[in-house]
Amino acid sequence: MRLYLAGPDVFLPDPYNRAATLKSHCAMHGLTGVSPLDDLLGEPAEWANLPEAHRIARRNEAHIASCHALVANLTPFRGPSADAGTVFELGFMRALGRPVFGWTNDATLFADRTRAFAGVAGDRDGDAMQIEDFGLADNLMIEAAIIASGGTLTRHSCPSHQRWQSLEAFTACLAAVKASL
Amino acid sequence: MRLYLAGPDVFLPDPYNRAATLKSHCAMHGLTGVSPLDDLLGEPAEWANLPEAHRIARRNEAHIASCHALVANLTPFRGPSADAGTVFELGFMRALGRPVFGWTNDATLFADRTRAFAGVAGDRDGDAMQIEDFGLADNLMIEAAIIASGGTLTRHSCPSHQRWQSLEAFTACLAAVKASL
Repeated sequence: MRLYLAGPDVFLPDPYNRAATLKSHCAMHGLTGVSPLDDLLGEPAEWANLPEAHRIARRNEAHIASCHALVANLTPFRGPSADAGTVFELGFMRALGRPVFGWTNDATLFADRTRAFAGVAGDRDGDAMQIEDFGLADNLMIEAAIIASGGTLTRHSCPSHQRWQSLEAFTACLAAVKASL
Repeated sequence: MRLYLAGPDVFLPDPYNRAATLKSHCAMHGLTGVSPLDDLLGEPAEWANLPEAHRIARRNEAHIASCHALVANLTPFRGPSADAGTVFELGFMRALGRPVFGWTNDATLFADRTRAFAGVAGDRDGDAMQIEDFGLADNLMIEAAIIASGGTLTRHSCPSHQRWQSLEAFTACLAAVKASL
């Protein structure tokens, strides 16, 4: 079973090493991890002419379409929500009708993180924009898609300085993927 | 032509009034705006038993699937990137193979916004995570999807205090949608 490994892990200082680590854990569960950094077999020759950012995006979309399921690192990234690229990819796979799974190294509630980010205690931020408060881990589209697709969301707290390295939530998520097969 | 109006506008103090305003501009362009706040015709009766957040998400997915194209308000929301729910929906529509359009009331570059957010001048944030710098408006998956789908991204700067009200970028985006038909 091919699993697309979405997440801001690609921004780590040694992203290829990180991808190899994530894939090795997939393999231990009998799963094939597919990284955004992987070469794309059969990549159309004309993509070589695209600007790099656009070529990366096409390749990622093709990788996702080649997988049976998606596993997203939803650890909050530069704000209360997950990385935007990761969330895009999760929505993409959801629309393909395949299972999407998530894991996060921050088990706090989205509403609590948003209030802390905005520096408010109520249900509006400084722009009077509502603070979504459904007891979920992130924006409702994310968690609802995971559940509706048959996936699971693994929430795990770890010390803040380990949140881009800890693999406890990831490996628990892989066990859930394996159990769902 | 039915256009799904994705955006954090649903979090404004009077979201129904905002939706009516956006729809009226769609109508002026001969387009039918569909808001996340709209009732869903033929909503499955069993959805009434879902928790509210999950019912909203199912309804939004169904609204998107019922539209010919999506127009996303990508104005940065609580961090350097667009609202997570909006980005999810953009990815969802992209996977359906239909055109996705974007508009933002902040014309700064994603890399510049991210550096300002992280308080750094280089290409790594305080966690040593790379700052994506391709001269784009947001994470590359977003802008590349828009272009690859045949859509457009309208970037417009307005005074910060008007960024949740200004409609200049939105109406320019609607003109682009209209021109693309």
